[in-house]
Amino acid sequence: MKLPKQSENFPEWYNKVVQYADLAENSSVRGCMVIKPYGYAIWENIQSVLDKKIKELGVVNVYFPLLIPESFLKKEAEHVEGFAPEVAVVTYAGGKELEEKYVIRPTSETVMYDTFSRWIKSYRDLPLKVNQWANVMRWEMRPRLFLRTSEFLWQEGHTVHQSLAEAEEMMMQALKMYEDFAKNYLAIYVIAGEKSNLEKFAGADKTTTIEGLMRDGKSLQMGTSHNLGQNFAKSFSIKFLDKNNKEQYPWQTSWGVSTRLIGALIMAHGDDQGLILPPAISPYQVVIVPIYKNEEERKKVMEEINKMIRPSLQDQNIRYFVDDSEKTPGWKFNHWEQKGVPLRIEVGPKDIEREIATVANRLSADKSELKLSELSKIAELLNSFQSDLLVRNQKFVEENTYQAENMDKLKEMIDEGVSGFYKSGFCGSNDCERKIQSFKTTIRVKPFAAGKQKCLVCGKEGQEVYIAKSY
Amino acid sequence: MKLPKQSENFPEWYNKVVQYADLAENSSVRGCMVIKPYGYAIWENIQSVLDKKIKELGVVNVYFPLLIPESFLKKEAEHVEGFAPEVAVVTYAGGKELEEKYVIRPTSETVMYDTFSRWIKSYRDLPLKVNQWANVMRWEMRPRLFLRTSEFLWQEGHTVHQSLAEAEEMMMQALKMYEDFAKNYLAIYVIAGEKSNLEKFAGADKTTTIEGLMRDGKSLQMGTSHNLGQNFAKSFSIKFLDKNNKEQYPWQTSWGVSTRLIGALIMAHGDDQGLILPPAISPYQVVIVPIYKNEEERKKVMEEINKMIRPSLQDQNIRYFVDDSEKTPGWKFNHWEQKGVPLRIEVGPKDIEREIATVANRLSADKSELKLSELSKIAELLNSFQSDLLVRNQKFVEENTYQAENMDKLKEMIDEGVSGFYKSGFCGSNDCERKIQSFKTTIRVKPFAAGKQKCLVCGKEGQEVYIAKSY
Repeated sequence: MKLPKQSENFPEWYNKVVQYADLAENSSVRGCMVIKPYGYAIWENIQSVLDKKIKELGVVNVYFPLLIPESFLKKEAEHVEGFAPEVAVVTYAGGKELEEKYVIRPTSETVMYDTFSRWIKSYRDLPLKVNQWANVMRWEMRPRLFLRTSEFLWQEGHTVHQSLAEAEEMMMQALKMYEDFAKNYLAIYVIAGEKSNLEKFAGADKTTTIEGLMRDGKSLQMGTSHNLGQNFAKSFSIKFLDKNNKEQYPWQTSWGVSTRLIGALIMAHGDDQGLILPPAISPYQVVIVPIYKNEEERKKVMEEINKMIRPSLQDQNIRYFVDDSEKTPGWKFNHWEQKGVPLRIEVGPKDIEREIATVANRLSADKSELKLSELSKIAELLNSFQSDLLVRNQKFVEENTYQAENMDKLKEMIDEGVSGFYKSGFCGSNDCERKIQSFKTTIRVKPFAAGKQKCLVCGKEGQEVYIAKSY
Repeated sequence: MKLPKQSENFPEWYNKVVQYADLAENSSVRGCMVIKPYGYAIWENIQSVLDKKIKELGVVNVYFPLLIPESFLKKEAEHVEGFAPEVAVVTYAGGKELEEKYVIRPTSETVMYDTFSRWIKSYRDLPLKVNQWANVMRWEMRPRLFLRTSEFLWQEGHTVHQSLAEAEEMMMQALKMYEDFAKNYLAIYVIAGEKSNLEKFAGADKTTTIEGLMRDGKSLQMGTSHNLGQNFAKSFSIKFLDKNNKEQYPWQTSWGVSTRLIGALIMAHGDDQGLILPPAISPYQVVIVPIYKNEEERKKVMEEINKMIRPSLQDQNIRYFVDDSEKTPGWKFNHWEQKGVPLRIEVGPKDIEREIATVANRLSADKSELKLSELSKIAELLNSFQSDLLVRNQKFVEENTYQAENMDKLKEMIDEGVSGFYKSGFCGSNDCERKIQSFKTTIRVKPFAAGKQKCLVCGKEGQEVYIAKSY
């Protein structure tokens, strides 16, 4: 099964990678996907790392209901405006028409904060920091596996604090966690910063984001962390008595990442041969392909694999798979390259005589010989692979970031098909932002350390932002 | 906060334990619960153990859609009859009335098997063994936290095989896994065996179960594993070409356990002081309570805890919590007893001088002195606690299992309020089973090694079964 060239038809390339690498497929339910074992194993690895990091922030896991009374959603004005058009609504249950309709959670602020209003009485109950791993639903007209599906899996953290400063700190801690995770585990060199006014989360005072640049030059929002201010606290009557026995509204944050991260992995690293997975997240870090021409050779090679290679990889805590299926070596090479396994070890009878194995690197496409006595170097090779992948992605981002001093320059680049991040100045006004949107581009992020730069639309004082086409 | 006596009002005792131990609470959504951090931590421990065991069976994790087209549910006649009355129905989505309604999955056979019919072509695609951790919804008229909630969390395993024998073996492997897990982790001495005809899963040829006896003498179905025969394969046109190139319908199984297991833990082990948790599953295995009268003593005691006790428990991989809050020791003792923590370590200034600590056992209520030089014995104490709890539960089951040779004897025991397992013979007929049901009791399980015994209703040849009131 040959993939289309990435450069010729990126969307079709993406669909085929998802299919050939056996990550997910469309179900008979419009917009909802089936996440297949290989795709789900990536998600499990993401979960396992992030769950630990979330707990290290002093956040505990909980589970809140899937269904939200329609009236809850309506309590926060901006929130309902943002989500009402895309909710799925339950009108019948248990054989009866419901008196009050329920929506399937598009996100859980409202159903959680209704409960928080009963949990929180005093400053002693704060901070409250919870997280849940859950499915959510936002009806999609143009679904795309992992990127935009009506149902997706995610984690959503929700915290409540005594002060704005504390909430702001929590929002930043969560975003920093996502940034570290994206760089050090997903090997994606994301740009971290603030969202503009029109791109904020519905109901938030401030939204921060990590944005990755995909290999077609479009930006992907990979995770967000919001300072909700006191907006929801006021709508849901969450109040606490402070140390001076005075009633106050607390300050809140929420933050999340989803199965969209798998889409990010595909589009940030993949090439014409298929997926390239970072070792830190790959279901298999190493695939071993025995090479033989007859049963006698097969026996000899498998014995060596079982005696020498398996134990060494196990000792190094490496996730590996021995592909001893009936297919040809060539088929297997292609198969595991499409699935993005970082390293492939090939062993044949002659290699055994020479006491070596061949190691093929999915990223560099290099093949090199490794002495069987030096198998303990595989862990190092994986570490190098992980950092090389990040370096490559950083280079890609740098090479595809352009200056756009004004709208003419931006239009010129768009017309010429130059795609990537367009670095510009922006004054912060909604009017100017709408003009940028009229080019089918959006302000993706204002980096945290943004310098001053004149607005590309109106020429007034502004700050540096990254503009791009996006998913 | 004092609990009602278990013997006086078991349902009220149950509700208060769930509340005081901070496990879960009702939400504003009828029948749906909020699982709180302490309750969710138990579920995470259950998941972590079971997920490993499931993977050891060669089963891989996947994720299928939450929503099921109504037409799918109707394809298997018995299945729809069983589940249609309790589904929640989505009729609107994305601002429009849907052409085909969707039900929120009450279980995923139908939505999975529709996909399986496309995955499976040949015997080479078999066996197919998948599992998912998910939320499901069955509308409940009389909800009860953990035991019967409209939404609950579970795992559901689904497998497809070439032969009946293979499917039967898989069904038994899954049930055996549940039985081992119940006994060795939950410390619940379950009875494993087959369900009777009227208690089978809707759409199965055979249902196997593990049943636990709760402390009020009622039985709780804690997990089931089904042989689905070819019923769903035929309804969903799942076919494969066998080795002789002949088209065949495969044989299927499904099996699951849910957050109901937390209800089982509460009711199988709890007492008038609250929860008693098995160390293998308890969020904290040990709680440490420092005893002091002033800040100087506090400093001394905390230093000892940090220097001596924490490192030792960490070395033994023990999950512990140091309760250095402002509450009194008495309050803390009561609090952690209600939460069921197996061992409590108390340390005061005098203990430190004598180089000892006091260890209180939640199960035996014994307090004993332990030399600080012998802290490494805590792991052993936890092992003993785990096995003592199972022994206690086994004894309870044995002491509350009664013979009921005929319906008069059964009625007599029920009238006298003798509650527990009623061991009887049963011929297998639906007529006799309905008569047993008319006493508000049901046949819970026919043990796998059931001996012959005459039917308590009709007196004909039969096999040994356990009858009981149940949840």
